[in-house]
Amino acid sequence: MASTAGKVIKCKAAVAWEAGKPLVMEEVDVAPPQKDEVRVKIKFTALCHTDVFFWEAKGQTPVFPRIFGHEAGGIVESVGEGVTDVVPGDHVLPVFTGECKECRHCKSEESNMCDLLRINTDRGVMLADGKSRFSIKGKPIYHFVGTSTFSEYTIVHVGCLAKINPEAPLDKVCILSCGISTGFGATVNVAKPTKGSSVAVFGLGAVGLSACEGARVSGAARIIGIDINPDRFEEARKFGCTDFVNPKEHTKPVQEVIAEMTDGGVDRCLECTGNINAMISAFECVHDGWGVAVLVGVPQKDAVFKTHPLQFLSEKTLKGTFYGNYKPRTDIPRVVDLYMNKGLELEKFITHEVAFADINKAFDLMLSGQGIRCIIRMDD
Amino acid sequence: MASTAGKVIKCKAAVAWEAGKPLVMEEVDVAPPQKDEVRVKIKFTALCHTDVFFWEAKGQTPVFPRIFGHEAGGIVESVGEGVTDVVPGDHVLPVFTGECKECRHCKSEESNMCDLLRINTDRGVMLADGKSRFSIKGKPIYHFVGTSTFSEYTIVHVGCLAKINPEAPLDKVCILSCGISTGFGATVNVAKPTKGSSVAVFGLGAVGLSACEGARVSGAARIIGIDINPDRFEEARKFGCTDFVNPKEHTKPVQEVIAEMTDGGVDRCLECTGNINAMISAFECVHDGWGVAVLVGVPQKDAVFKTHPLQFLSEKTLKGTFYGNYKPRTDIPRVVDLYMNKGLELEKFITHEVAFADINKAFDLMLSGQGIRCIIRMDD
Ligand SMILES: NC(=O)c1ccc[n+]([C@@H]2O[C@H](COP(=O)([O-])OP(=O)(O)OC[C@H]3O[C@@H](n4cnc5c(N)ncnc54)[C@H](O)[C@@H]3O)[C@@H](O)[C@H]2O)c1
Ligand SMILES: NC(=O)c1ccc[n+]([C@@H]2O[C@H](COP(=O)([O-])OP(=O)(O)OC[C@H]3O[C@@H](n4cnc5c(N)ncnc54)[C@H](O)[C@@H]3O)[C@@H](O)[C@H]2O)c1
Ligand SMILES: [Zn+2]
Ligand SMILES: [Zn+2]
Ligand SMILES: [Zn+2]
Ligand SMILES: [Zn+2]
Repeated sequence: MASTAGKVIKCKAAVAWEAGKPLVMEEVDVAPPQKDEVRVKIKFTALCHTDVFFWEAKGQTPVFPRIFGHEAGGIVESVGEGVTDVVPGDHVLPVFTGECKECRHCKSEESNMCDLLRINTDRGVMLADGKSRFSIKGKPIYHFVGTSTFSEYTIVHVGCLAKINPEAPLDKVCILSCGISTGFGATVNVAKPTKGSSVAVFGLGAVGLSACEGARVSGAARIIGIDINPDRFEEARKFGCTDFVNPKEHTKPVQEVIAEMTDGGVDRCLECTGNINAMISAFECVHDGWGVAVLVGVPQKDAVFKTHPLQFLSEKTLKGTFYGNYKPRTDIPRVVDLYMNKGLELEKFITHEVAFADINKAFDLMLSGQGIRCIIRMDD
Repeated sequence: MASTAGKVIKCKAAVAWEAGKPLVMEEVDVAPPQKDEVRVKIKFTALCHTDVFFWEAKGQTPVFPRIFGHEAGGIVESVGEGVTDVVPGDHVLPVFTGECKECRHCKSEESNMCDLLRINTDRGVMLADGKSRFSIKGKPIYHFVGTSTFSEYTIVHVGCLAKINPEAPLDKVCILSCGISTGFGATVNVAKPTKGSSVAVFGLGAVGLSACEGARVSGAARIIGIDINPDRFEEARKFGCTDFVNPKEHTKPVQEVIAEMTDGGVDRCLECTGNINAMISAFECVHDGWGVAVLVGVPQKDAVFKTHPLQFLSEKTLKGTFYGNYKPRTDIPRVVDLYMNKGLELEKFITHEVAFADINKAFDLMLSGQGIRCIIRMDD
């Protein structure tokens, strides 16, 4: 164990004091890990829309002051009571949802929605004692989805840590903590396109592009990207997109445009926008007989999915996925290995890099729609 | 070939002259089979709701005079040009939907929705020449879904004939032509419950009971039957039902009642009513993470399926099926063999039997909701 084990660590963290206000670099106290917890030294983190969404706190329960961040790679500093799966020095990716390995979901081959460690965006504390491990002058600073990676050190439940190949470059594989695994897994684990098939992807953000990457590595012959922002199209080619559709350029519903392009519909479709109309179009554009549509985007609270039930009778399938159906501990180490073996490209997702001190620049980039992923270097 | 080959056959048929009026026994002329057609001597037929539905012709295009009937077993009398798959004497089940073996659907492992021979309830003629093979004094009598089994002889496209084990009793296996295969296949081919799992079935008519039978032979530990008609419950026990729910006896939505009975939802659910609210409940009552709901019932034209898209994000799957995903020629002979090997019970579906002359009694039984299947004997 490191000499810091069992002691409070003082380190830098980017604290969100208020909704929508720039993060502030602070010195925080990080308490030692408790039962089933691990203290991780974060090496690289990235910014995802979900951080921005809860930082803006428009509509959701505001939990402040809070340390955001949930895409990251780090090294175990010390472990709490009962932790045997990781030891200090292990390379890990914290994940916003966990795997307790004990519940019905963890025991099911089909689910990754762990009863104990399923994502909870409202909770700002650790499970063990309902308290925060972060504080400034004794006042608690709240956690975010059990990861809070915008801090040099953080506390994570062992069930939310993927222990990965120590040779994997943390500044690349850190993006597998969330969006990239979500889209990639949605395609390869859920939609499962076969070689030569056609795949449509609604929304060409980080999640949609990783869904395209999943289609590309699956050998799809045709990958149709759909986005209302035409700027996304050029980028998408790098992820295997062969065709582009901007729904705004057509008078007929986009599902009809796609059906015409594909002799009746695509074999597989991934919805990565969160927009309810895109969800409906995504389902209706798959081919009857064998088409499968997978919903990845997170819808608005009051959204209603509506379709004619004959759409189902014609043997279409509609599924949803959460984190690409990956179990964090069991599956994510294998995705890292897939990257190491060139079965998946990550570099092309990384469009920007900033020092930790400049973390607000990463927010600016995302808010202005620039790039895909911005890596934040903690060590500088 | 029989001595009747190539000649018009005069035989008895039960003709529907008008919507909703009792069928009338007539002597009809049955022309010889043309290219890719087969003339079949029907031995046993049964009555299904779909016959009654189109005979009542409330809302659908009325096609009269017409010969209904689509669940049957018979023997090939003669074959038309190009038919090599069956020969006179073969035992066959006519099926309302076909398998051309050439189209994209037939070539796909996932679909049975043949482009050429997919069910068409509006068409009253044969594909080859757009004409009827039935006539009375030169005036055409129309076909129904390419089967028209309420006739001692009928003409069927070879792609709509399952050639079956000649040892199989036609008075039993004839019911595999439609409803029983639909429900059974929906469970074993589409929902695929595992041993020990929980299965809910909405609607305990012939289709729902055969879905229960599929769950029973799959080894489901718990089979929950849901019907608004409490009379269905006693019968359903024979098909493996362990629990019953009458939605009318509860104030809360039936999906909540089922979720409470099953610690969060059933593993699989089959919707066999055609009612849109049952479809929505059927989807919402499956467990998150792994639940699969399969829609079997045929909805009304203006029905809208509505649900909150978060239902999908929690990793539920919604599928539809048509004819239990069976391909008539490839798969139905195997279902007959399964019955012969006691992997599926058919006797318990057969609650009544009448002579052909009494076919209107079969309509009366169905209209008054008595029994499951009434076998109509052609030979008496
Ligand atoms: N299911 C999960 O586990 C999971 C995990 C992470 C993110 N998500 C969700 O995935 C979705 C995408 O995330 P992202 O980070 O890639 O977002 P993003 O904002 O970067 O990308 C979304 C893209 O969709 C496009 N778009 C919006 N409405 C559209 C419409 N009607 N038709 C076509 N295109 C449209 C936008 O122009 C944008 O390019 C979000 O809803 C997010 O919450 C889900
Ligand atoms: N998909 C296919 O290939 C296919 C083939 C044949 C039949 N079908 C369809 O399957 C459905 C069932 O056929 P069937 O012959 O068994 O019909 P049926 O009328 O004998 O049985 C339907 C049962 O559902 C019950 N029911 C009706 N509304 C209900 C509700 N809201 N909640 C619970 N129970 C309800 C009725 O009381 C009845 O017992 C029909 O819609 C039929 O058109 C589909
Ligand atoms: Zn768990
Ligand atoms: Zn994220
Ligand atoms: Zn075909
Ligand atoms: Zn039928």
